[in-house]
Amino acid sequence: MNSSENMKARLLDYIEAFNAADTARVTALFAGNASVEDPVGTPLKEGRSEIDAFYAYATSVGARLELMAPPRGSHGNSASISFRVHIAAQDGQPAYIDVTDVMDFDAAGKIVRMRAYWGADDYHLSAAAG
Amino acid sequence: MNSSENMKARLLDYIEAFNAADTARVTALFAGNASVEDPVGTPLKEGRSEIDAFYAYATSVGARLELMAPPRGSHGNSASISFRVHIAAQDGQPAYIDVTDVMDFDAAGKIVRMRAYWGADDYHLSAAAG
Repeated sequence: MNSSENMKARLLDYIEAFNAADTARVTALFAGNASVEDPVGTPLKEGRSEIDAFYAYATSVGARLELMAPPRGSHGNSASISFRVHIAAQDGQPAYIDVTDVMDFDAAGKIVRMRAYWGADDYHLSAAAG
Repeated sequence: MNSSENMKARLLDYIEAFNAADTARVTALFAGNASVEDPVGTPLKEGRSEIDAFYAYATSVGARLELMAPPRGSHGNSASISFRVHIAAQDGQPAYIDVTDVMDFDAAGKIVRMRAYWGADDYHLSAAAG
């Protein structure tokens, strides 16, 4: 079984790699047979090529993930992390999405399942700067 | 489908009812066939009587849930909430557990599945007061 500490360290790696726009470092955290459901309730991205394409795009749009609380482990092979995704709205106005990711890990310590919890109402325009 | 807004309102009800030690109000949020996995990786509490017993105990020990971030919805029938559980350690010293709950809702808006993500390393003794 994965230790809770190791899973949480991988989740922090994920945030750091994403914020560095280092697509290869992000996707290296995933197993070849992984699935990504982002947001939960939409079709899965499955397997290496779909996950690579998803993160190539996601890391290309200037999004920045702000950690909102310490990651949580479990007594199984799952861990979770909550963050705010800072983005620009279509008109360039700052916006953000509140997200919680749940990741399941395989025996090799790779992510095999990622589920991102956020709804349409978790998208907000940021307060205007003074 | 449940609206993201409704699911998030139910999660905030859960926190409020738990902090009021109102066991009946907490368990009324659950469907009769619900399962609770708390923490993830341990055996399920299943069905009305096991869930009632679990929350009768959980709300009896003086735990207080502190919301750490806004709840998150999804594009499906799931939502998540992250909080800190303030408790007393066995010797009476203040302690806390960092937890993220993921809840799945049925068509009637009741919780049918609850999974609480926290590991042994998410338990901390609180800093001593000055």
